[in-house]
Amino acid sequence: MSRIDGRTPEQLRPVTIERGWSKHAEGSVLVSFGDTKVFCTASFTEGVPRWRKGSGQGWVTGEYSMLPRATNTRGDRESVRGKIGGRTHEISRLIGRSLRAVIDYKALGENTIVLDCDVLQADGGTRTAAITGAYVALADAIAWGKSKKLIKANREPLTGTVSAVSVGIVDGTPLLDLCYEEDVRADTDMNVVCTGDGRFVEVQGTAEAQPFDRKELNALLDLAAGGCADLSALQARALATVDTPDAS
Amino acid sequence: MSRIDGRTPEQLRPVTIERGWSKHAEGSVLVSFGDTKVFCTASFTEGVPRWRKGSGQGWVTGEYSMLPRATNTRGDRESVRGKIGGRTHEISRLIGRSLRAVIDYKALGENTIVLDCDVLQADGGTRTAAITGAYVALADAIAWGKSKKLIKANREPLTGTVSAVSVGIVDGTPLLDLCYEEDVRADTDMNVVCTGDGRFVEVQGTAEAQPFDRKELNALLDLAAGGCADLSALQARALATVDTPDAS
Amino acid sequence: MSRIDGRTPEQLRPVTIERGWSKHAEGSVLVSFGDTKVFCTASFTEGVPRWRKGSGQGWVTGEYSMLPRATNTRGDRESVRGKIGGRTHEISRLIGRSLRAVIDYKALGENTIVLDCDVLQADGGTRTAAITGAYVALADAIAWGKSKKLIKANREPLTGTVSAVSVGIVDGTPLLDLCYEEDVRADTDMNVVCTGDGRFVEVQGTAEAQPFDRKELNALLDLAAGGCADLSALQARALATVDTPDAS
Amino acid sequence: MSRIDGRTPEQLRPVTIERGWSKHAEGSVLVSFGDTKVFCTASFTEGVPRWRKGSGQGWVTGEYSMLPRATNTRGDRESVRGKIGGRTHEISRLIGRSLRAVIDYKALGENTIVLDCDVLQADGGTRTAAITGAYVALADAIAWGKSKKLIKANREPLTGTVSAVSVGIVDGTPLLDLCYEEDVRADTDMNVVCTGDGRFVEVQGTAEAQPFDRKELNALLDLAAGGCADLSALQARALATVDTPDAS
Amino acid sequence: MSRIDGRTPEQLRPVTIERGWSKHAEGSVLVSFGDTKVFCTASFTEGVPRWRKGSGQGWVTGEYSMLPRATNTRGDRESVRGKIGGRTHEISRLIGRSLRAVIDYKALGENTIVLDCDVLQADGGTRTAAITGAYVALADAIAWGKSKKLIKANREPLTGTVSAVSVGIVDGTPLLDLCYEEDVRADTDMNVVCTGDGRFVEVQGTAEAQPFDRKELNALLDLAAGGCADLSALQARALATVDTPDAS
Amino acid sequence: MSRIDGRTPEQLRPVTIERGWSKHAEGSVLVSFGDTKVFCTASFTEGVPRWRKGSGQGWVTGEYSMLPRATNTRGDRESVRGKIGGRTHEISRLIGRSLRAVIDYKALGENTIVLDCDVLQADGGTRTAAITGAYVALADAIAWGKSKKLIKANREPLTGTVSAVSVGIVDGTPLLDLCYEEDVRADTDMNVVCTGDGRFVEVQGTAEAQPFDRKELNALLDLAAGGCADLSALQARALATVDTPDAS
Repeated sequence: MSRIDGRTPEQLRPVTIERGWSKHAEGSVLVSFGDTKVFCTASFTEGVPRWRKGSGQGWVTGEYSMLPRATNTRGDRESVRGKIGGRTHEISRLIGRSLRAVIDYKALGENTIVLDCDVLQADGGTRTAAITGAYVALADAIAWGKSKKLIKANREPLTGTVSAVSVGIVDGTPLLDLCYEEDVRADTDMNVVCTGDGRFVEVQGTAEAQPFDRKELNALLDLAAGGCADLSALQARALATVDTPDAS
Repeated sequence: MSRIDGRTPEQLRPVTIERGWSKHAEGSVLVSFGDTKVFCTASFTEGVPRWRKGSGQGWVTGEYSMLPRATNTRGDRESVRGKIGGRTHEISRLIGRSLRAVIDYKALGENTIVLDCDVLQADGGTRTAAITGAYVALADAIAWGKSKKLIKANREPLTGTVSAVSVGIVDGTPLLDLCYEEDVRADTDMNVVCTGDGRFVEVQGTAEAQPFDRKELNALLDLAAGGCADLSALQARALATVDTPDAS
Repeated sequence: MSRIDGRTPEQLRPVTIERGWSKHAEGSVLVSFGDTKVFCTASFTEGVPRWRKGSGQGWVTGEYSMLPRATNTRGDRESVRGKIGGRTHEISRLIGRSLRAVIDYKALGENTIVLDCDVLQADGGTRTAAITGAYVALADAIAWGKSKKLIKANREPLTGTVSAVSVGIVDGTPLLDLCYEEDVRADTDMNVVCTGDGRFVEVQGTAEAQPFDRKELNALLDLAAGGCADLSALQARALATVDTPDAS
Repeated sequence: MSRIDGRTPEQLRPVTIERGWSKHAEGSVLVSFGDTKVFCTASFTEGVPRWRKGSGQGWVTGEYSMLPRATNTRGDRESVRGKIGGRTHEISRLIGRSLRAVIDYKALGENTIVLDCDVLQADGGTRTAAITGAYVALADAIAWGKSKKLIKANREPLTGTVSAVSVGIVDGTPLLDLCYEEDVRADTDMNVVCTGDGRFVEVQGTAEAQPFDRKELNALLDLAAGGCADLSALQARALATVDTPDAS
Repeated sequence: MSRIDGRTPEQLRPVTIERGWSKHAEGSVLVSFGDTKVFCTASFTEGVPRWRKGSGQGWVTGEYSMLPRATNTRGDRESVRGKIGGRTHEISRLIGRSLRAVIDYKALGENTIVLDCDVLQADGGTRTAAITGAYVALADAIAWGKSKKLIKANREPLTGTVSAVSVGIVDGTPLLDLCYEEDVRADTDMNVVCTGDGRFVEVQGTAEAQPFDRKELNALLDLAAGGCADLSALQARALATVDTPDAS
Repeated sequence: MSRIDGRTPEQLRPVTIERGWSKHAEGSVLVSFGDTKVFCTASFTEGVPRWRKGSGQGWVTGEYSMLPRATNTRGDRESVRGKIGGRTHEISRLIGRSLRAVIDYKALGENTIVLDCDVLQADGGTRTAAITGAYVALADAIAWGKSKKLIKANREPLTGTVSAVSVGIVDGTPLLDLCYEEDVRADTDMNVVCTGDGRFVEVQGTAEAQPFDRKELNALLDLAAGGCADLSALQARALATVDTPDAS
């Protein structure tokens, strides 16, 4: 079977990870998974929320949002409606949890990093692109914090790397990294967040039309694990470039 | 290993499902999973939301909430704060999706059923108890709709049954149906929604502390599938009683 | 004249007051006035709101809410609408004022008790059932505070007891404790809160259709005073049982 | 006993009722009870809220608000806080109910009148001044509707008149029309709304400190009935002047 | 050309500035520009917002609002809608900036003055009347602060005076101080805030229909400068009266 | 005098206007004025808001927002705070008015174009960059509407072009197109919106510290008119390229 964009079932879309996209943020990335483009910034601030003060531990959190015309038809701004929708809440929480899975709070010290993931253009997989890009922004912000001596611990605050990908069953075939058109046709849709060493941080599978059996679930998990390994390699390559972001 | 309440790892807490708990609602259930008590009502109304009018298809949705003192320390009411929190949003959406997985919209016809799941007392697993109880309330509301000739199709709107359970890894051991004290100590926490025939509707696993590997994931899925099978039997028994709820 | 449920004009509906309904709250009661069921919890916390700090005086407040399907047709949740309606505000304030009328703030010390009254099922008289039940939960919370030495004064923080009942004129006849069907037909509707020694804490009478004269007002006040005396006896009986609630 | 402003216990403060205070509104009044000044406008619009369409009946409602510096210390605007407080809600509802008590909805026809009562300066009794002034604005708006043939019924939409006054027990003495300084010292505070023929529309008594007995209640009701009779006469005098407001 | 109310193009409407309109506020003015009437209060409080603490500098801010029936048809209250509209925000900010232009923060010391401008009746030019009146209320509040020794600096906190006026081009003719009927017909509408010595604080010109050229802009600025000079003289006269406001 | 970035007083920062930046929007532009980068999308929809239906006239409106880390320190999201700030409101309104100034509503027909201007990176002049970029996106959306025959009139809906620039007085020198560092030091700050033929659409001048006199105002207007002429040429060049955006 050939996919609508010619990919094989286990192939990612073209992925780009551009660092240093903001002159203000301590870490910033424009990540694209095909036509999905997400702008991720990592804002480093000294201090932690009130409930964590005096603990000696840091905090990492995420916020996700779509620009109103990121999608094919314009959506109302949540700021104009005066409330955040359930989907936005859900994805923001997922981003925060995913990145906290590789943070050693003690090593981070009483510092806070907020990851803002704003979708400039959506074509399926915005949350997985967001997590994958946010990890790179986070790594840059932590490097910045160490260079400024705001992170004082001897050990590395990052205990691993994280990336995320979507998988789904379309017309009976498990596919990796669904684009929007595939996503709407999928019977089952799953988002998987993995560490660089191949363990799972989040597995969120939903039967959109037909419940799925264990065999299908296994096939999806296999595909996702492979996709995350590829993304992990792309993150490493992006972080290996000399170009450091210039936030002062 | 013995659990804090003496259960074996694969044992559910005592589960009760009391139907007909409201004289107004078309379906209503007080469900308890140990000390977790959730009041589920199914409200049947003719007609569907505007975006679905004229489609000939029905709609099912869910809303979850905790009473302020359902937990050990009192939480502020979301109505007083003026906004719904991310967790509430997330669980409400999960309940709606889970129940829609066993609905044949065409057979339901242009009718709407809202499942309100209000947690009276929380001790871990409130979302899974809510889904399990809401299914029974839904079944009663559908029976009511058929008896009132508001559901006119010849075929059954329910295409199956759903129940849900939590599983997690505590001190290295996979456990079924975590109570609150186990939940806070779990490294990995997973909520699984299954149909009565053993397929998956939702799988939501989260690494709270340590990422989990494929073997642990498999052990958790096995446990959850067994737990859902038990819950499915309990739902069937509850629905088999003669006592029909008396909403008029 | 015989009432729709066979009561005499000056007769209460069957009233039940079950204590210890929550394992978490310091005081908790499920109160029913006929088919009206309200779940009341009293949450005891050390400390007082900022404006009262350092005064040596405590605070007591109330919050009232209806579950969405407490009534015959489902109402939207106030948390979803993002604001609290006028009726909810009004009743919450009434509950707080009524219970504060029997509190000696100095004897309570700098502690706060919040009374949450959530209507599980409504059939008229929800605010009066709430006040009557909340008093019992309050008494249990105060007993708990004394047993934990959080209330340190020698004298009793409760200066009396309070209960409440509705009265109204239906087809020219003054009736006690209106059920919903009577309430919608009433020309005049009055809610009266009394202390156990027969004095008035609140008198709120409203002409729904016809203004009422002094003679009618007097008849209603007589009925209400009698009803509150009966409720006061029922409260005393409920509090006399040995069963103490088990909040730890 | 002499009151702080030299009045006798059963004496109103100086009351003024100025009609035609707005060039836009169909009825408008600046009412003062001593230093309490409330600006009341009655806005007449053809048509009724959706839930009343096709009923042939009209609707009357009220909204109350305080300017931020109406009181001795500035309060935040409710529009800035983003929500209406309980007290505002409660008084708005009271104003609406009080005026609807003298409206024949059928005679009004499918027209709506909104009474806006904005407190420019507060010195106790703002809600009673608001109701007393709003009645006069309402009468002018109804006269306007009849003159414009928007009210078509042969019979008068107003079935009576309403006025309101506060009473309270201060240092053991029942007093009429409390100013702010008396109000804060009162043990019991009652707001009474009467029709011009001496019947009751609303009786709202609250024990601020000490519960009150039946004798005290009777004394307060006597005082209030007398005060309302005086206000009723002042309303009649204000409406008897030739000066009609000039809304076009 | 003669204007609809008979004025010449460069003539203000009758302007009145009544001081001491509130017994509570430290400064208060009822200002009218023809049928536009705005009630301005200046509330003086010791202390400054948190972000300014310890700076030794004061703060001045403004809030603007329209009563619901200030206009020809009733508008919804912003408090009821739960949010402030863009126009209100914009004008509130303009008022604050305009008055801060003549404040020496150091001389004011750590005190805050809030200017509330509530439009009782609108007929064009509400923001300019608000600024003109608010200046007078501000001057009174500052005098009050000095008399109470809350302002301790030797030099005057007011570095000048401010007034404001609207100008516009109607049917090709530049006009001063537009009434509502002129305003809706204007091609260009400009609000100008000047100091008493003839310099500009704000110039806000908007092409409502046709863009305007430099010559038209110059003509409007000339007119506005003249209008502000007249208003400045009226402010001085109002402040010269002996009558001091009586806030205690 | 040399400016901090080496420009002459009357020189713009490097300006880039990239069209076709979104695959979904009917018009889209990434505009930069130096380090200020704004993403502008024009969303074309058939139909108009309710209040304009049946008029045969179209509508154009704007919404402005800053990403949370567009600035040097992270700001809270307005969606999270639940309300839009005054500054955002003000700029959104300015963008809408500015673009409507060159729209012939009849020629546009009953179509709506929404201009979303999201600031990705801020360094002063975000509103003027937004207007300048939004004009180009608008022109593309109108071209799209004509190509799709949704705009049916024979005459062009655009009656001209608009661009905008900021000017200010820094250390006594009038400067064009202030960057952030200049902006915070400016005594007077003015935003000017001009049509391509050199007329004014908006003039908004504010004395930040010192009121400004007529001579300074004239100097600023001269500078702004020159800057807008340059921007107008850059817009024309951007629109002259063959590359049409590919929204389908």
